[in-house]
Amino acid sequence: MLKSAEKIIIITERIICSRIIEYLESLGIKAYTIYQNVSGQGERGMRSISGGLSRFGENIRIEIIIENEEEAIAVAEKIYNKYLSSKYAGIVYIEDIRVIK
Amino acid sequence: MLKSAEKIIIITERIICSRIIEYLESLGIKAYTIYQNVSGQGERGMRSISGGLSRFGENIRIEIIIENEEEAIAVAEKIYNKYLSSKYAGIVYIEDIRVIK
Amino acid sequence: MLKSAEKIIIITERIICSRIIEYLESLGIKAYTIYQNVSGQGERGMRSISGGLSRFGENIRIEIIIENEEEAIAVAEKIYNKYLSSKYAGIVYIEDIRVIK
Repeated sequence: MLKSAEKIIIITERIICSRIIEYLESLGIKAYTIYQNVSGQGERGMRSISGGLSRFGENIRIEIIIENEEEAIAVAEKIYNKYLSSKYAGIVYIEDIRVIK
Repeated sequence: MLKSAEKIIIITERIICSRIIEYLESLGIKAYTIYQNVSGQGERGMRSISGGLSRFGENIRIEIIIENEEEAIAVAEKIYNKYLSSKYAGIVYIEDIRVIK
Repeated sequence: MLKSAEKIIIITERIICSRIIEYLESLGIKAYTIYQNVSGQGERGMRSISGGLSRFGENIRIEIIIENEEEAIAVAEKIYNKYLSSKYAGIVYIEDIRVIK
């Protein structure tokens, strides 16, 4: 059986990974995937307390799958507002997926 | 030229990676991508023979691209039924993509 | 706020990673993410100067996000024509995403 869901992808600085995970858990999210060995370069002028996204191998990708679209957008916006809108370099985006059940 | 296709993503325990690859090859699938350094936490209560998805750095992500949607869903369901419905922790899902040819 | 965008994903041989990044920068693309520890197996018969996609751990995944769909397709086709249509093993594909702003 296929079930529509949203995948939230957060790519940001490694130093805030555990804080994001704790925040996700405080929102009741208990399932996620973390990718290590992620590096990259952000847009020039991107603000970051720590210097952000410019040093090789210092980034992290966190993935969360949430079935309800409104809930997924709300979680993604919370992460964006708390960490990425002004403090740390990174991006949050959503993809439509279909999960096998 | 763009060609619509489905991407199957399998995130599961590292210990069954080679078995899944062998199974995919038995289904005639010869192209796939494997991501190492994947960790995560599954839903509480998720069943797994080996303890599953809770130890850091022990997971794997396998990606397969299949042009035909019905075939992609059938492959994803076979993987789910064989490995993830009751034995090992993990998830299988599908994404719509467009491949450059 | 959600903004529609395209994610370009390039999976190819590690040896051309820096050349692709330089080429992306020559096209004015300044933001990208690179995944290390990617391995895989391409279709049998896939041509590659270096032997391509068959040795474990030798591949790379590069992700670029471009808001404008036509521009994203043009960039993906340029990468395909320059590196993947005849010289190196790999794939380029596009996914629809929604970025949080």
